[in-house]
This record gives sequence, C-alpha cells and structure tokens, in this order.
Amino acid sequence: MRVLGIDPGLRYTGFGCIDADVGGQATGVVVAGVIRVPQRKPLGERLVHIHEGLTQIMVETKPDLVVVEQVFVHRDRPQTAMQMGHARGVMLLAAAQNNIETSELSPAEIKQAVTGNGRATKEQIQHAVTALLNLSAAPDQPDMADALAIAIAAAARRLP
Amino acid sequence: MRVLGIDPGLRYTGFGCIDADVGGQATGVVVAGVIRVPQRKPLGERLVHIHEGLTQIMVETKPDLVVVEQVFVHRDRPQTAMQMGHARGVMLLAAAQNNIETSELSPAEIKQAVTGNGRATKEQIQHAVTALLNLSAAPDQPDMADALAIAIAAAARRLP
Repeated sequence: MRVLGIDPGLRYTGFGCIDADVGGQATGVVVAGVIRVPQRKPLGERLVHIHEGLTQIMVETKPDLVVVEQVFVHRDRPQTAMQMGHARGVMLLAAAQNNIETSELSPAEIKQAVTGNGRATKEQIQHAVTALLNLSAAPDQPDMADALAIAIAAAARRLP
Repeated sequence: MRVLGIDPGLRYTGFGCIDADVGGQATGVVVAGVIRVPQRKPLGERLVHIHEGLTQIMVETKPDLVVVEQVFVHRDRPQTAMQMGHARGVMLLAAAQNNIETSELSPAEIKQAVTGNGRATKEQIQHAVTALLNLSAAPDQPDMADALAIAIAAAARRLP
C-alpha cells in the first residue's frame, strides 16, 4: 500500500509518500519534500502552484491514499481558516481528479500513532520518523517530517 | 468588458456573466445559473464538480474578470470558514488556470453598488438586478440573482 501524506500550507506544503506492508508498517520512502509557494503572487496563482505540484507528485507516485492533516484554527481567526481552506481545497481536488481516495487525520492522532504521545514535540516527531523509516539522517525540513508522519500514521491506522 | 460573478457555496454556487460598457454600466446577460453540488459525494468529488462547472463556464464565456463574493464567517464557526474556503479555493484556481484576473467584493459593497443600500434585502437585490439588466422577469433563484449582482457591482466599481 502506498500513502501520500500532506502537511497543508499556503507558504510551505510538505509532502511525504511511503510504502507500507499489509500490517500497516512503513517499509520505505518513495519521495518526500516541500513545495515552496511564491508569496508575492496573487492567491489564484499560488493555488495553481500547489495544485500543479501535488498533481505531478500524485501522477508520478500513484498513491492508493492521500491523507491531508486536519487544521484547527483558533476561533478568533476565521479568516485564517478560510485561507487554509483555499489550500486544502485544491489538494483534495487534485486527489479526486486523479481518482485517489482521501482521508484526514488530526494532529493529535498523527502524534499518537508515530510517537505514542498525542502531544509530542516537533523534535520527537522528527526523531520517530527517522527511526520508523530507517533514515540515515533526520529530515531537515519540519514540514517534510510532518508529512511523512501523516503518511506513517495513516498506514498504521488503516488496518485492524 | 465581460465580468463573471460567483456566489460561492458547497451546496449551490451561483454564477452570472454580464457585459458592461466603458462606463461600467451593465449592457446584458451572457449566461447565469446555479451549479447544484451533489451533497452525498465525498468533499473531493464535490470540489471537482464545482471546478469543472466553473471551468466550462469560463472557457465558454471568456470573461475579463472573475469576482467572487467575500464570505464572512462567525467567529464561533471556524470549521464553516474552512469548508467555504475549500469551495472558494477551487474557484480561484479555475480562474487562474484560465489566466483570468480575479477580484473580491464584500456583501455590503455589492448591495450598496446595486441598490444604493449596503443592507438591502434579498428581494431588493432581485428587484434591482431585474431592473438594471432589463430582464422580463426576476431571476427565480436567489444565488443566481446574487451572482449577477456581484458582476454588476464589479463592473460599476472598476471604473473611475
């Protein structure tokens, strides 16, 4: 089973694609990285940048499942929720256009699945991802580590 | 000048395309209607439905400007803002993919431009749209009337 995890953002969007065995255990990284979104362009063009980048990754890796992190926005910032929704919308669109099933996980579910602690720090997640994927070094970009953690958590949770 | 107004929604998305003269005065309706989004399908497929519908309208009408109504969400409902952002994201994406400039107007700006009253009712907007566009009957769907009002307001405000 192949899972693509996405850590959504209008500035940096992390992605991490892994393979997992029938037990839900990650067996290797297919590709991982960060899409850097040009900030000076109008919103529509930034959304095109995200949509094209993720479409290309989906076409090349052909995942069975795309998992986008749920985002919780403070109630004082509904406009932030709207902005984040713009980015998530084009991600879910790209998956549906490629006939790939989508799912969501909350930050606590991801942290719990990867580290055993729903309140783990960024460093603990990086450490766990490095160990679980047998990487020679920790992912240097937090958004990339988060995206890999999303994919690992989804693979682990999907099975009984 | 040709303007496409969009009243965004994950259930009903209204659209109204008008032509305007150099003074910003609407001269006629090119096309108007409502995209009904199937509610039982997963979010990704609903976004594909909206994206495909609006892309087709943009390709057929070739507007110079796409205007999407700004949405203000109550601070107690950030998840509603996120959902609305998903829909607006694929609308702005469709415009950018077709190299069409986009703009936004607030509900008060639209009501003010069309009726002279920033707090006009739905019925007053329908009445004003019917008069301004010389329609033989009022648009029977409120989302369609709103989308036409957005286009009329954008055309009127765009010029000095």
